[in-house]
Amino acid sequence: MGRMNENEIIELLTKTAGRLPSRYSKIGDDVVTMLTRHGKLVLKSDMLVMKTDVPPGMTLRQVGRKAVAMCVSDFAAKGIRPEALMVSLGIPRDMDESGVRSLALGFKDAMSAWRLYLLGGDTNEADDLVVDSILAGFGRRVVGRDGAREGDVVVVTGNFGTASAGLKIAIDGAASSKSFRKRALRSIYLPAPRLEAGLALRKYLSAAMDSSDGLAICLHALSTASHVGIALRELPYDRELESFASENRLSLEDLVLYGGEEYEIVGTVPPDKLAEARSAASAHGCRLRVIGVVTVGRGVTMRNGREIKNRGWVHLS
Amino acid sequence: MGRMNENEIIELLTKTAGRLPSRYSKIGDDVVTMLTRHGKLVLKSDMLVMKTDVPPGMTLRQVGRKAVAMCVSDFAAKGIRPEALMVSLGIPRDMDESGVRSLALGFKDAMSAWRLYLLGGDTNEADDLVVDSILAGFGRRVVGRDGAREGDVVVVTGNFGTASAGLKIAIDGAASSKSFRKRALRSIYLPAPRLEAGLALRKYLSAAMDSSDGLAICLHALSTASHVGIALRELPYDRELESFASENRLSLEDLVLYGGEEYEIVGTVPPDKLAEARSAASAHGCRLRVIGVVTVGRGVTMRNGREIKNRGWVHLS
Repeated sequence: MGRMNENEIIELLTKTAGRLPSRYSKIGDDVVTMLTRHGKLVLKSDMLVMKTDVPPGMTLRQVGRKAVAMCVSDFAAKGIRPEALMVSLGIPRDMDESGVRSLALGFKDAMSAWRLYLLGGDTNEADDLVVDSILAGFGRRVVGRDGAREGDVVVVTGNFGTASAGLKIAIDGAASSKSFRKRALRSIYLPAPRLEAGLALRKYLSAAMDSSDGLAICLHALSTASHVGIALRELPYDRELESFASENRLSLEDLVLYGGEEYEIVGTVPPDKLAEARSAASAHGCRLRVIGVVTVGRGVTMRNGREIKNRGWVHLS
Repeated sequence: MGRMNENEIIELLTKTAGRLPSRYSKIGDDVVTMLTRHGKLVLKSDMLVMKTDVPPGMTLRQVGRKAVAMCVSDFAAKGIRPEALMVSLGIPRDMDESGVRSLALGFKDAMSAWRLYLLGGDTNEADDLVVDSILAGFGRRVVGRDGAREGDVVVVTGNFGTASAGLKIAIDGAASSKSFRKRALRSIYLPAPRLEAGLALRKYLSAAMDSSDGLAICLHALSTASHVGIALRELPYDRELESFASENRLSLEDLVLYGGEEYEIVGTVPPDKLAEARSAASAHGCRLRVIGVVTVGRGVTMRNGREIKNRGWVHLS
């Protein structure tokens, strides 16, 4: 028998889960929810594995911070404030005290940045460093992936492709201007999930998700879950990405659409709420960019009708 | 700088966490809790790492089941019914479809055994199989580790040392009678946390904890948290463990006190509630055994006054 990739494994686990009572969310969104008398309990676990999730040059302090940031980004896209943090750790036998201390400092950075409380966790031995971050929060309404409607505008909270460029700089030594290099490396070493903007945007978003697997995957997931099409009008990227791409003979479009590792929110907003959504985001230092519109039909296309493929980062593929 | 063991890492993380608001549990119990208007949200994450947590001869289906069982056992000791399950997976690239299917069957076994709903999780690539199980539940009162009072009796829900013997059989090929071998291997391949008994015992237990790190560690943790001493009157073991120990030239006391991997509840009960506690446990097929009494002072001693060391399974030691 062959191997299964991440998506096939998730499908198998979804089948394993079977039909869930209506108080639980269906498998397949960024977070899971459980209806309680207090509102919705929102949970998310996100596992960082050193070998696959940590680019060269990243400090252990940044690793600790990023492990939590990944999980915060999912809450951000759903408009829910996470409040309690747990960490399950797999620590390699050869990691010394200074390594563990750096990791803990990274957790502390995350706790300060997003006002989280670390309640506990679990510590184990593993061959490779593994950090599973678990966040819990409560909220009344969780922004789903299935609420996009024809005519809504598609918005993003930031640029795409910069993190991808950062990985190419860190891993392959790709050339770049000094200022872009700094931004690109910062985006992979110190990802900045849009928590405050996401909370402020909640009431305007008809659908949203975290973009860490890449813009294309994200747009396709929204399209599929909402049974709509998405027509892109423009690609959101840092203006220096263009010269980075040509200097390194990379496809600009590939960097923007299929790179992944951006911790932005991709969402849809009814057109009559766009102005308010923009000013809500901007109050939190985030410029909301309109990149397309929701259409009837299915799939994701460019303005010229060309199809955007449903690919990006898939573990084990 | 040297390495840190599990306890030192937990201490560091506890310091990192800082002072928690009173609606959160303090770090260091089997579960974490968060006070809500709905009652207490109870969370626990427990990471299984193939290399350190899986004995030879165990099937992947048993691994999936055990990963969840470990976490259920913590809820059992606290008297809380877990209801929602998440699994964060690190899957090795060479694990084939049948392996993933077996693992999923193991999750299903756990879901059926303890009436859990699998809500989602996270899938990643890792060098070694890693399963982080996360359980959530609600309850009014969580049995702590700090409620043991002088005069309480110390109770356990089952035998100790059998799992340790099972590991010696599976790993070192230790000799044993056929019937004991079967029980010993079953205890490591199909651990049976005392969930129903734990729920029934909640109202009688003054303190309790899950025993998977070993009986001695567990008694010491209760003694420390409750600021009391514990005087053991007898050791709880399968009568065939005695011949197993002598046949294999092992110390019976070491097997019982320091082995670990038992998923039993170790607790304390006020003497006037013992009869009721016994019958509550027995209604769930569990014979409650009295193994000692809570005394003034500190530490854990045998009937003859000899001290029981605070050692057992500590990761990374």
